[in-house]
This record gives sequence, structure tokens and C-alpha cells, in this order.
Amino acid sequence: MRSLVPDYLADVLADVASDTSGELAGYIPELASADPDRLAAAFATVDGEVYGAGDIDAAFTIQSVSKPFAYALALSDRGFPAVLDKVGVEPSGEAFNEISLETGTGRPRNPMINAGAITVHSLAGADDPEPGARVERIVSGLSAFAGRPLRIDEAMCASEMDNAHRNLAIAHMLRSHGILTEDPRAVVDGYIRQCSVLVTPRDLAVMAGTLANGGVNPVTAERVVDAAVVRQVLSVMATCGMYDAAGDWATQVGIPAKSGVSGGLIGALPGQLGIATFSPRLDEHGNSARGVSLFERFTTDMGLHVMDVPPAAQAVVRSNHIRGHGSAAVRILQVQGGIRFAGAERIVREFVADPPLQRTVVLDLARVSSIDDVARRMLLELARRLTADGHDVSFVDPESLVTRSRGSGG
Amino acid sequence: MRSLVPDYLADVLADVASDTSGELAGYIPELASADPDRLAAAFATVDGEVYGAGDIDAAFTIQSVSKPFAYALALSDRGFPAVLDKVGVEPSGEAFNEISLETGTGRPRNPMINAGAITVHSLAGADDPEPGARVERIVSGLSAFAGRPLRIDEAMCASEMDNAHRNLAIAHMLRSHGILTEDPRAVVDGYIRQCSVLVTPRDLAVMAGTLANGGVNPVTAERVVDAAVVRQVLSVMATCGMYDAAGDWATQVGIPAKSGVSGGLIGALPGQLGIATFSPRLDEHGNSARGVSLFERFTTDMGLHVMDVPPAAQAVVRSNHIRGHGSAAVRILQVQGGIRFAGAERIVREFVADPPLQRTVVLDLARVSSIDDVARRMLLELARRLTADGHDVSFVDPESLVTRSRGSGG
Amino acid sequence: MRSLVPDYLADVLADVASDTSGELAGYIPELASADPDRLAAAFATVDGEVYGAGDIDAAFTIQSVSKPFAYALALSDRGFPAVLDKVGVEPSGEAFNEISLETGTGRPRNPMINAGAITVHSLAGADDPEPGARVERIVSGLSAFAGRPLRIDEAMCASEMDNAHRNLAIAHMLRSHGILTEDPRAVVDGYIRQCSVLVTPRDLAVMAGTLANGGVNPVTAERVVDAAVVRQVLSVMATCGMYDAAGDWATQVGIPAKSGVSGGLIGALPGQLGIATFSPRLDEHGNSARGVSLFERFTTDMGLHVMDVPPAAQAVVRSNHIRGHGSAAVRILQVQGGIRFAGAERIVREFVADPPLQRTVVLDLARVSSIDDVARRMLLELARRLTADGHDVSFVDPESLVTRSRGSGG
Amino acid sequence: MRSLVPDYLADVLADVASDTSGELAGYIPELASADPDRLAAAFATVDGEVYGAGDIDAAFTIQSVSKPFAYALALSDRGFPAVLDKVGVEPSGEAFNEISLETGTGRPRNPMINAGAITVHSLAGADDPEPGARVERIVSGLSAFAGRPLRIDEAMCASEMDNAHRNLAIAHMLRSHGILTEDPRAVVDGYIRQCSVLVTPRDLAVMAGTLANGGVNPVTAERVVDAAVVRQVLSVMATCGMYDAAGDWATQVGIPAKSGVSGGLIGALPGQLGIATFSPRLDEHGNSARGVSLFERFTTDMGLHVMDVPPAAQAVVRSNHIRGHGSAAVRILQVQGGIRFAGAERIVREFVADPPLQRTVVLDLARVSSIDDVARRMLLELARRLTADGHDVSFVDPESLVTRSRGSGG
Repeated sequence: MRSLVPDYLADVLADVASDTSGELAGYIPELASADPDRLAAAFATVDGEVYGAGDIDAAFTIQSVSKPFAYALALSDRGFPAVLDKVGVEPSGEAFNEISLETGTGRPRNPMINAGAITVHSLAGADDPEPGARVERIVSGLSAFAGRPLRIDEAMCASEMDNAHRNLAIAHMLRSHGILTEDPRAVVDGYIRQCSVLVTPRDLAVMAGTLANGGVNPVTAERVVDAAVVRQVLSVMATCGMYDAAGDWATQVGIPAKSGVSGGLIGALPGQLGIATFSPRLDEHGNSARGVSLFERFTTDMGLHVMDVPPAAQAVVRSNHIRGHGSAAVRILQVQGGIRFAGAERIVREFVADPPLQRTVVLDLARVSSIDDVARRMLLELARRLTADGHDVSFVDPESLVTRSRGSGG
Repeated sequence: MRSLVPDYLADVLADVASDTSGELAGYIPELASADPDRLAAAFATVDGEVYGAGDIDAAFTIQSVSKPFAYALALSDRGFPAVLDKVGVEPSGEAFNEISLETGTGRPRNPMINAGAITVHSLAGADDPEPGARVERIVSGLSAFAGRPLRIDEAMCASEMDNAHRNLAIAHMLRSHGILTEDPRAVVDGYIRQCSVLVTPRDLAVMAGTLANGGVNPVTAERVVDAAVVRQVLSVMATCGMYDAAGDWATQVGIPAKSGVSGGLIGALPGQLGIATFSPRLDEHGNSARGVSLFERFTTDMGLHVMDVPPAAQAVVRSNHIRGHGSAAVRILQVQGGIRFAGAERIVREFVADPPLQRTVVLDLARVSSIDDVARRMLLELARRLTADGHDVSFVDPESLVTRSRGSGG
Repeated sequence: MRSLVPDYLADVLADVASDTSGELAGYIPELASADPDRLAAAFATVDGEVYGAGDIDAAFTIQSVSKPFAYALALSDRGFPAVLDKVGVEPSGEAFNEISLETGTGRPRNPMINAGAITVHSLAGADDPEPGARVERIVSGLSAFAGRPLRIDEAMCASEMDNAHRNLAIAHMLRSHGILTEDPRAVVDGYIRQCSVLVTPRDLAVMAGTLANGGVNPVTAERVVDAAVVRQVLSVMATCGMYDAAGDWATQVGIPAKSGVSGGLIGALPGQLGIATFSPRLDEHGNSARGVSLFERFTTDMGLHVMDVPPAAQAVVRSNHIRGHGSAAVRILQVQGGIRFAGAERIVREFVADPPLQRTVVLDLARVSSIDDVARRMLLELARRLTADGHDVSFVDPESLVTRSRGSGG
Repeated sequence: MRSLVPDYLADVLADVASDTSGELAGYIPELASADPDRLAAAFATVDGEVYGAGDIDAAFTIQSVSKPFAYALALSDRGFPAVLDKVGVEPSGEAFNEISLETGTGRPRNPMINAGAITVHSLAGADDPEPGARVERIVSGLSAFAGRPLRIDEAMCASEMDNAHRNLAIAHMLRSHGILTEDPRAVVDGYIRQCSVLVTPRDLAVMAGTLANGGVNPVTAERVVDAAVVRQVLSVMATCGMYDAAGDWATQVGIPAKSGVSGGLIGALPGQLGIATFSPRLDEHGNSARGVSLFERFTTDMGLHVMDVPPAAQAVVRSNHIRGHGSAAVRILQVQGGIRFAGAERIVREFVADPPLQRTVVLDLARVSSIDDVARRMLLELARRLTADGHDVSFVDPESLVTRSRGSGG
């Protein structure tokens, strides 16, 4: 039997293939000469399966799709305060190449516009590195996200550097505000190298999948960045990733995403999957025209919108019964499913509404599929309170969901 | 035993109580005379439990917190195209009372700024209603969200109408662009009546809980608006709900939210809970100062950020075993937890990687806590393909998760 | 013999008559129904002669051409500080109906945009007048500028009031900032009445001529406003009178000017003449298309640009000679032309470079055509210093140019 | 006897000397180390006299005061269309270092902001020169305006180039829009050299005097640029010379002016004089604080505002009489003063109102001090018409005011 997913992806690609609207990015000769008809879509699940259809192994330069990953690396390398001090997180409502610096401070509005991305580039790696070492750090970081060694397209670098006047303007402006503190030309040169890293749609899906998986590459199992960094990156992608179409995207697609001028487009659905599409013709916002259509299809077909209210779970409390009699009687609460705050609250309520008369209380978690920090803490507090009330409390917890300690990455 | 939640809420209120930063809204005399020390927090779970601490039954005028609900009503009453044609969904990056109309069309940027909210007010109820009937529609709609009959504070209306010059300016501007098509004064009068509806923190929690519950009031079980409307409203709250602090909020709190000038603040976490806080002193963005602190605590303590990657679930595939022997052998796949796209994909993969040799295949869903549309369709397609390959496929599905039909709101 | 001027005006009108570019103002029905082909030009000299060609007695509503005159009346009635406190003098670089309020204060940028003109309207007449009395003050003031009683076109008022939403928006915004302190609707109603005063091109030429003549109507000889007010009004017309084409106008035409949506256009050349044109079709800036062409012709043909350096005058010192002999010898300096600072400096220099040996010094001003304040003061100081050096100084001053006292309007 | 003017200047300097408000420009180390107490004022009359008080021979770098002169050179060297195509003439209402490019075209708003001035620099000299040759052209051009060889302060150049990031940002932005077509670094380097030319207050007065004198240096009598260029430059100075204080300056001072960050400030009053002041402390607009006060005094004391309506001239028609009798009778019109359009019109009117019965008509211009082109043409046309009516017309014109041909600069 063939998997459903490749069939689905192939079907969806076929549906959008005839759409030749949009234009190739014209301002960089190397991009303007791309094959406009290339088309691909790929999914990477958080447990490491990668599906694709179309030209999923076609290589192209990553361009602005590098921005969220470089942001993740900078946050990881320098810490949040150092990065937030230099680059804001507010949507600019402006096109990608607007300067959008905050009045007064000169701080770029967010890391997804060029001014922010150039600043972020300067913050990757150790403090005050040699520019070449910084580029190496970024290439190796992007490679970790992709799960294979990536390399720079040197011809594209040269082509872009010749056309980099707008980015040089931005970098000199940032330097004049003290946001950059080194030679603006070296930073732009490095930033262009970052944008010229060659990737395939398959790579991008795994990179997005790493974000969806909380920072752990689902294929290589390498932790690339920690969960707090991922949360920050996804939040910024959600509000700033699609330039001046941010609101349309947030309402209609609802997947944190980032597009690039070479036609790449990624989305990351926390806990589920990374998505990548590739089609070089761009719409009027500078986003891949067919890429946007594909994401709209994915959301509609698969319920991937982050603001979709999930279906009501089955009752978390599967049963609340007494086993045995008299003083040997035991109160058993059998719970099920994934437990977050709302589920834990429901469990607590069961004992508040109907305090157990039995001395011994058992919480049976054998059917629980997952549990998060707050729910774990609530169940431990519940046990503490019941104990304080004179009960003997025990957990049936074959997976050690409640008793194990949690790592930083959540 | 006392529930944990009220204790938690009381603890958190105590922690922020000493913060007297911020100022009462000064421009409306009735608001300027509010008791600045009032403080409350309330949670409403999606299964109808309401918790609170502090002044949760103190009544105050709803002000801008009415905006997402009126937007939901307008979308419901007129349909998406009629509303989107008049009001955009893009973050404005501006303060609440900026005019922020699109150049050329005069369309307000989003429904959370006053220009958008005034336009949305005019779109609630039937097409071209009598102004009084429209206000009645909105009050009854807000009441359905709250689960009890709400009423207007007439003294506040009068006070605000005397100070409504900015809103009248906006409304006349909208009228000059043809966004409003009726008497601007009547619309502003109605809008002020909408803003003057009296609510309590408990009401606001239930209203937010109705959004978190996909449009069904969790206390009264009334469906107020459908799920697609809720998705739109939550998306817009996520990007535009906190004025010019939208990006800070999205990264640090990550809960779709809306604040009001009288000190109310709501958040809705899809599928989990509605949250309301009340504290009248406002920070420099016009958001309740202690309300913002409370939400930051809630997110930190409870992992409520929408971009938090949920903990990895236990393996969705609990077991894959064969029962019986020879031609009577049956392949049984036992799955567990909540199943969305990623889980369904994992189940499909089990059969693709290791095609069953047994004629009879059983999918045991007894331990499944929830399943969404796409997962249901995938499992049905899996069964169809297995059948086409010559298998007899059956589901163990005591809750009819796969076979039942879904309502429009799901 | 016929005068040259009417012939010239007729020739120039004939040259532009075939230009039918531009559009009637469409937003007010009464204006949209104007005869687009009407065409007129008129000159009013500062000594009261009026020349014209074309439809110079066609009546139309004055519209924005009223703005500089109402500004003059407000400055006159309330004094500079009261008006400057409420309305700025900075070019806005924006179209006529932009709101253009200063951030923070809400002060309109200048009196030539609608926000400024509405505020100025509220400042005409006595402090806090009854609205009807204020309109009467403005109509009587405009009439004084025109030299005949003007009246309001009541049909136009009604038509405009129906379409006044943008002005009402502006007025409510001004009220919300405390720039207006009374009912915004009453102010807009009065402002529309101001704009609906009926004038002819001949009237406008005389009105502009009154500005060119330092505030004295050159036909009736009535002083309407004083010279300091005129200087302020002309300065603001020079930088803000032509909306977003201010810089083009300042360089190419160089005459302080003001246009109106009904097709009127005035210019005032200090000390020389007032100019008016009338042609209803407007260019993309909202200025009369043929009116702009006519002014460009006038400047080119007649050297009217305020930044044209005037031709070098003949030597101001006509002769410096000695009459008589011995102790009876008299030093006579005969000067000529119009004397301002530069001329007076030249005269002083004559005595510094070559101090008179004769006791008696005569300054012969018989050939002097005009002298301004600073020159008069310099000549008196020169006489004082010569006297202090032991000379007897006398003036030949048949017109009492030096000895008479000057009026305020000078 | 001492001249009045130095005494006046010394008095005015003494009045402002105690004002130590404002700050030195801080962003360039060389400027920040200037002596803040230096103070000077100088006048240069259009006939070549230079007066001064204070530190009139102190040398400092010209900075932005070079902008109008470089603009004049570019207009002269390349012609108006080539320059206007690249740099607009609209006030920007913004501070000096705002980028202020037109949306879409990227054209700087005007030549007085840095973006415009950098572009203007690139347009001086021959088309496509070697950068060194262009700087030589500008230094020699500025020297011609000053009437002596000027030189560059090389230490200042080096200091500024180290701090030139904002200008480099602007130049790269201009290059990205195709406004600059060469290496942006070379243009900025040249522009900084232009700004580093050393001048004294005396030099600046002569430079401004050259503008006041229609483009002819009043000391050396060299024609530096022609009159049309001067008109353009003065018009742009009038609307854009004082940054965001343009309107205040236009109303209160009313002299076309330009300030620089090193404390220089010039004004040019067409046909009268050039003015320069020097005081390094700058106000919040970036203009010399005491320089602004000095100009306000000059305007108030000396009636220099360009919108001051000059005093009414004596009647241009001195007499209209008949000499002789019978057929020998001659009609003699004796006129006086400076004759421009208004005066010529008055003369024409004399013959229209009262057609001469005498065959012979004499226009006696012996008392006329100046006459401009349009007046000359009008008098010639008057003579032609009188001749056509059968008169013999002759001029008494000892200075050949009517009959001589005019040069282009006049």
C-alpha cells in the first residue's frame, strides 16, 4: 500500500501547477534566471518522516527563509536580552525591504525585515567574532537544522553583492545608530553569504520540522536550539513572517511561516510538522504565488490553523470508582489522553466536588498519552493536598509521566 | 479539599496587588472616577467550570473588550465577505485611537482599532437595521457570550457621548470614504452603547471561554457563533488585540487577547480556557498594567503560549500485534491519545512500512481521546486502501470517533 | 489708443483656451455641474486700476481662496499669538484635505489646509461670538477686501453641508484636541458658508490687490488689515498656498498664491498688483489647470517672480559736488530713486569715504521716489553724526520723505 | 565719521552675546571641539562693500551652507532638466538628515536635505567626471562665489569620513534607486570634501551677496552663475533652507537662507545684500541659535522681509504737460523712479485716459533710476501704438534705459 501523504501532495501540486501568475524576483540577475516552473512541496513530521512531491531535491539559495533560523541561532548564542535590545518583535506592516527602524533608537522593528535580519546576522556566534567565523557558525547552524552539511552558492554571492546597495544603505544606517558596531560592508557581505546557502525543499521541510519539534531535528535527533528559542521564533514568524500580508496569512492560513525571494516558503506547526514549498514566481507581496496557494490548501484540508479550536477531547476522567470494601476500599480515578492545564484542572475538580471517603486514593495514568509541566505540578500538588487530608495517594504511572524530571526543552 | 485553582489565582493576585503603576483612563469622567484598586482574575474552562479570585463580580463597562465579540457577531450576521470588504485584518502598529485607514480605500486596518470597531458595529445584525435594533442585537449577542442578560450603563453612555469627538471624527471620515453608509452620529451613538455594556470579570471569563470552546458557551452550552468565526476572531486578537504592543504580547504571552480602557483584559486559549482579569490602571500602551502582569504569570506558570510546542505524546501506536494463528490471524493496531494529522500519518506509516499479511485488520481506537477531521478522513482512506488491497478492515471505536459525522462547527 | 494690458490678457487667454485638461471637482454636486469652459484673468494694480479678459464678471463660490483672507481677518481680530497658538505655518507637503495635525498638540500644520482653515474660521471676529455673527464678520471682511458687498450662495451651502463628512471629521478631531472649543458642527456650517461666498474674477483681483497694496483696498482706499498681517498672509501663501505643488510653484511661478476647488486662483505681488484667474477644471493637485498655465505665463512674460533680482538701479548718488567757494562752500549730495537699506548705506558710505571739508552739507532728495523706514532712520542718523562732527546739515526734501512720520501700514 | 553699519552690527552682536543656549553639533569630533563662543555677522552689499563685526575672519568648515552654492553650480553645469530630474524642490518638513526620498522614484525631496545635496554634488561639473575633478570644480566654484581661493580642511574630512555612515546609507539608497549611478562611497567622499571647505563669515557674506546680486560677485564683478539659476536657488532656500523650521523662518524672517552644522548661516536679499552670521551652538532644529536671533533682528530693524510690501513710491508720473503752442505743441510726460510692470502700466494709462492731441509726444526718462524688461517692452509697445495713431514719439533717455539691449543675467 502506498502512503496517503505523497498522493495528497502530488494531487495538490497538480491543482496549482497551471497557475503561472507572479514574477521572478528581478533585482538579482542570478534569481531572475531561475526556472520559473519548478514546483515542490514537502512535509517533515516531528518523528522524522519526510514526504514530498515535485522537485524536492532542486537546490536554490535560501534567501530570507534563513531569517528565522539565523534569529534562532543568535538567540541561542547571545541570549534573549542581547538580541531583543537590538531588534524588536513588532510587525512593521511594511514590505520586506523597508527600513523600518524605530524612531529614536534606530532599532529594526523585527528580525524578518532586512534591517532586522542584517542585525541578527551580526549577533550570531560568539560575541565579536571574526566575520568569516560568523558565516561558518551560521552555515553550520543552518546545516544542523537541515540535518546535512549545506554550502554557499558563490556565484549567487557575487551577483548579490553587486546589487546590495539597499542592504548597504540599511547597514550603514544601523551603524550610524550604533545598532551595528562593526564595518557595515563586512556584515552585509556575511549576510549575503547567509542568504546564498543552497537548500532543497526537502531541507527546508526538515528545518521547519526542527522548529515544529521544539528545536530537535526530527531526523538526526540533534537538539539545535532550545524550546524557549523556538517559541520566540515561531511567535515572530506568526506575526511578521509574511511581510505586509501578515494579517491575511494569520487569518487564512494560520501557520507560522517565512517566505524567501527565491521562491521558498516554510511553515512550522508546533508539535505536528514542518512544511516547505518551492515555486519561484512571486506575488505582489514578494511571497511565492503558488506557495501561498499550497499553504491555503494545506490549512483547509488538514485543519492546521493554530487558532483552530481542537475537537473536544473524550472525557479526561475515564472512570472514578471504588474497588474493595470497608476499610480496604480504594478510590481509583482512571484518566486518559493528553493532559495539560485543562485536563489537570478537571481531575482536581473530581476530588473537590466529591471528596474521597476512602483512605487510599489511586490515580491511574496508564492511558495518559502525554502530560505537560503545569499538569504534572498540579497532580503532584493534588497528591500533596490529599495526603495532607490524611489519604494515602499512589500513581499508576507506567511511563513515569508524573515522576520523571523534565528537560529544559519542554 | 480546596481546589488548587482559586488558591493559585489568589496567590498570583497577591503578588501583583502592590503594583500601583499606570493611570486611570482620563478622557471619560465616568472612567476617571473608577476605583483604581479593584483587582480580579477569573478562568472559565471549556467544560464550564469558572474559577476566580478578587473582585470577580464587580461590574464595569466592557469598552474595547467588546470589539472581538462584536466582530464575531458581524461575521456571523453578514458573512465573511461583507465584513472583510469593509475592515482589514492587518496589524496597524498603532495606538488604539489612531485612525489607521488604508490609503485610497479608507478601509480601517483591523477591527480592534476604533475605526474598525465602529465599522464592525454598523455591520452587526441584519442588513440596514434600525439603529436601536442593532444595539439590541449586540447586547443580546454579548449576553449569549456571557451566558446571562447584560445591560447598558446609561450614565456612562451619556458621559462618553459628551467626549466622543474623536470617534465622531473617525465615523465622519469613514462616511466620507463610503465605509459607513448611514448617519455617522447614529453609528457612534450605538457604538458607545456597545462599549457601555456592564460586565463582571466572571462574565468576561465566560465570554472568553466561549471563544476557547469554539463558539459554544461552556456554561449554557448555547452555540453563539460557529467555529470558523471563532478562528477568525482569535487570529485577529493574536495579531491586533494589544495595540502597539502586539509583538511583545505575541512573544511573551502568546495568548490571543483583548484589552479595554476600563481595565478589563481577556485571553482565549483554544480548546482549554477563557481568562479574564480586571484592574483599572493602564500602562503606556493603554492596556491594564496589572492585567498584563497577570497574563505573563499565567503563561509562564501554565505553559499557555500558543507557540509552545506541546510535549511529545506517548507513541500514538500503542501496539501492533497479531492475535490468532494461520488464516484466523488478525492484525491489531492499538492506538491511543488525541489524533490529528501527525498521529494519523503515523498510523498510516505503520501499514506502509510493514504491510499486513493477515487478511483481517483491526484498528483499535478504544484508547483514543480525540480525533479531528483530517485524521478521521485519513483513517477512512487507510481503510479504503487496505480493503482495496484485499483486507477486511474493522474499527474498535466505542465512542464512534471515526464513524460519526461532524457538525459544521467542529 | 487701447491699453496694452487688456490686449495682453486676451492674448494669453486665447493661448490657453484650447487646454481642456483636468477635471471638475466631483465631490460636491453643485461644483460638478459648473460650466467647465469658463475662463477669465484679471489684474488689479496697487493704485486701483482693474484690467480683465474673459468671464471676469462670472460669479462662483470662493471656496479655498477664502482661506488667506479669513486668516488675515483672524490675525487682525484676535492678534498673532492667539492664532499662531492654534494653527502653525509649516508647509505640510500634503493634499488639501489631509488632516495634517501636529503629533501631540493636534495643531493644524498651516491655515491653507482644511484643518487649519476650519480653525481659522473659528477665530475670526470677536472672542466667542455667536456663530451667525462670525459668518457675518467674515462676509463683511471679504466684502471689504473685494470693495463691494458679497453674498452667500445658499444652494451651494446646502449641497456642501450634505457632503461635509470629511470636514466634520476634521472638526471633531480638532475638538477632541481642544483646538476647537465649541460645537464642531456649527463651525463646519460657518466654514461652508465662508466657502460659499460668491465672487467674480474681478472681485478676486481686487482682493489680491488689497494684499499687494499692504492691506489697503486699492479701489476703495479702505484699510482692511494692517501691513504686518499682510506680510504674514503672503508668507504663508508663498510656502503653503498651492498644496503639495508648493515647491514647484515657488520655483516656477514665485508669486504668493492660493487656489480654490471651484477654479479660482489668486496671486499677490507685493507693491505691484493682484492677479486672479478663473477656470474650473483642476489638475491632479487640485489647482485650476489653466489657471496654473496663466500664472506661469505671467511670471515669464512680466518678471513677477519674487526671487527675481531686480535690475541694478542707476547709481543712487546722482552727484556729489561743491557749490560756492571758501567758507561759503556747500557740499551737496544729490540722490535719486527708491531708497531702502542698500541705498541709504551707499549714501552713508559717500561721507565716510570722503568726509566733507565744508561746514554746510545738503542732502538733495528731490529726485527720490520712495524711502523706507530703515533708510529714513539711517539718513537721520547720518545727519546726527555729521552734526556731531560740526556740520550744518539740511535736506532738500519737497515731499517730506525723511521728516514726515510713518503710518503703521507703511 | 564712522559708518553706521559696523556700529549697528556691533550693537546687535552685543545684544545676543549673552545667549549661550544650544549645543555644538556632537556627532563629528572636529565640530564638537569648536570654540562655542565665536560670534560674527557680516553684510555684503550688491555694489561690493563688506561690513562686519565680531570674528569675521575666523575660518570654519562650510558644511551645509555649501548646499545652495553646489546646487547653483550643478544647475549651471548640467542645466535645469538634468538636475530637476534627480532632485525635487518640495519642502520635506523634516530634519536635515532625514532620507526623504519620494516614494517610488527615490528622488530626494529637495537639494537642502542631505540626500538631495549628495545627489547635487554628483551633478556638479561635466557629465561623468573623475571624482577628483568634480571636487576641484566645486572648490573653484565656491571660491568664485567667495571671491578668493578657498581650500579644504583635510583633518575635518578625515574626521567626517569616519562618521559618515548616515550619508553612506543615503548614498547607497540613492544608488539602489538609480539616482546615483556611480560608486556611492566616492560620491560621499567628495561630498564630505565639499562640506569641509574652509570659509570665514566674510566669505559667506560675499557668497550670499553674489546670490543677492543676481549671480555676479559684487566684489570681483565675476559672473559666477546666471540670473535664472539664482532665482531657482533663492526660491529653494526660501522654502527648504531652514529644515523643519521653514515656515517659522518664512513668516518671521522672510529672507532666503541656509544654515550649516558648524554654525554658519547665510541670507540673501535679492537686489540688496548678502548676510552671514557665525555662532556654533545649534538650536533644536540644527540651526545656529544666535544666528537665528541675529536674522530676526535684521529683519525687524531693517525691513528686509521679502513679503514686506515696499512703501508706495512717489507718483511714477512726475508731470504731464504741454510745451509750446499750436502745431508746435509737444506733449511731455516726465516719469521718475524705478519702473517695473506696475509703473509702466501707470504710464500707459496716462495716454489711454487722456489721448494726446499733440502730434509730438516725448517720454522724459531722465529721472528714472531703473527699468526692467517688461516695463521696457511696454514702453516700446506704447511708442509703437502712439506712432500707429499718427504721433511722433521720442524718448529723453540719457542712460539708454529703454533702448539698450539687456544681458541674460539682468
